[in-house]
Amino acid sequence: MKSGSNNNPIGIFDSGLGGLTVLKELIRILPSENIIYFGDTARVPYGTKSKNAVRNFSRQITKFLIRHDVKLILVACNTASALALNDIKKIAKKIPVVGVIKSGVRAAVSETVNKKIGIIGTSATIKSESYKSAIKRLGGKIKIIQQPCPLFVPLVEEGWIDSKITEDIAKIYLYPLKKAGCDVVILGCTHYPMIKKIIRQVVGKKIKLIDSAKEVSKDVKKILSNKGLIRMAKSRGNLKFYVSDAPDKFSKLSKIFLGKFISDVKKVDIERY
Amino acid sequence: MKSGSNNNPIGIFDSGLGGLTVLKELIRILPSENIIYFGDTARVPYGTKSKNAVRNFSRQITKFLIRHDVKLILVACNTASALALNDIKKIAKKIPVVGVIKSGVRAAVSETVNKKIGIIGTSATIKSESYKSAIKRLGGKIKIIQQPCPLFVPLVEEGWIDSKITEDIAKIYLYPLKKAGCDVVILGCTHYPMIKKIIRQVVGKKIKLIDSAKEVSKDVKKILSNKGLIRMAKSRGNLKFYVSDAPDKFSKLSKIFLGKFISDVKKVDIERY
Repeated sequence: MKSGSNNNPIGIFDSGLGGLTVLKELIRILPSENIIYFGDTARVPYGTKSKNAVRNFSRQITKFLIRHDVKLILVACNTASALALNDIKKIAKKIPVVGVIKSGVRAAVSETVNKKIGIIGTSATIKSESYKSAIKRLGGKIKIIQQPCPLFVPLVEEGWIDSKITEDIAKIYLYPLKKAGCDVVILGCTHYPMIKKIIRQVVGKKIKLIDSAKEVSKDVKKILSNKGLIRMAKSRGNLKFYVSDAPDKFSKLSKIFLGKFISDVKKVDIERY
Repeated sequence: MKSGSNNNPIGIFDSGLGGLTVLKELIRILPSENIIYFGDTARVPYGTKSKNAVRNFSRQITKFLIRHDVKLILVACNTASALALNDIKKIAKKIPVVGVIKSGVRAAVSETVNKKIGIIGTSATIKSESYKSAIKRLGGKIKIIQQPCPLFVPLVEEGWIDSKITEDIAKIYLYPLKKAGCDVVILGCTHYPMIKKIIRQVVGKKIKLIDSAKEVSKDVKKILSNKGLIRMAKSRGNLKFYVSDAPDKFSKLSKIFLGKFISDVKKVDIERY
């Protein structure tokens, strides 16, 4: 069995391109690792789909990643982490599975002073109450204020990252969190770090923003380290990109998310897995 | 072969729920017809997907509708009409196929006086230039101004139908059409009639708005009539609803789009077709 080898890749997946913000952070702190990224661009977004659909999609992607002998699976998609983490773990068996939610929650719970945590995410993530239950399991008596922000993803994908419109919408969405007096807000969607500046302006300097991409990357490093699975080579790792729809759009948008243009992207018939 | 029978249903499909605005209009002018509606809610939206993905999805749905002995296929989705109409026709063989685009274009060309037509739609519809080429085929020397409006669909689905934000976004999107002096604007997406009031406010009273749902329904009536396929019964027709994701969300949103709550919706594994 090849899984377990230090040279085996880390597998990351997301419903689309948002997970590239997680990949970027992972490359920053683990530059020698080989990594496979899968973006489910044919069925994006997951945030508006049913639990069963997201579980089904996640199982297919997990099987695809296992075929590529990944040594760890990072579920960069908040919706999949919320709705399908147990399904993924069942299929992955001994391969460790890390979801963005738990990492974000751990950081939020350790940062809050007044015990009031805000969570923003897609409708499906919020509706699943997965962040809420993860906080309750970890944090004891904490007041939780949840707010779905379904327009943030299309605004980022429209490229309106510094727009007055985005600020106006952020004011509407974030008002309940400010009013409730949260001192920590979790950015519960991989797209949201792209508009962190506007979110920061709207909520003010006193509220700590938790970027799950950073937190989950730290956790991945810790797990690989504990299991003796860190790749020791000094060379930079290989990156491989797979998507379920045409690669061209991925290549273009990767510049916005990852900060560099990726041309070598392969299409996978993911429904067959 | 059963297709051809007057009692056979009309098949309509859309990427999701937007097509219900077309269905509503069809029921209004053809109340006795039996109708099957398919909404591809597991893979919605089509507007951001590749041409190949949309063609593949459309072929699967066409096969599904043919299995149900439809006597006509109405492609309510603008993106599928733009990218996949020929694929659908090939599979449908003798069954007539009607797409929203041609009907909308015919009305626009007959309404314009100053020969300046504006088109608004999803990114994929605009990028396909299908409206543009349909106008050119039909209308001779006409100036065409195209404008993608990718945020309109999520705004409608967020329910911000009377919102100041939607008006502000509409002002940004529609400014080039006003500036160019169009006297006709085609609403090139089934969601857009839901915010027709705001679009009307922004463009002013002098610009004629073409609602493709109305135009395509008139065309369906004409085709069925010419072929002697109108259902003659005086009773109201049966409606059947199928989706590719969980039916519950469809049922809830049908109230917004169709004006009534639909509870009898069946899930189909559309990928198998």
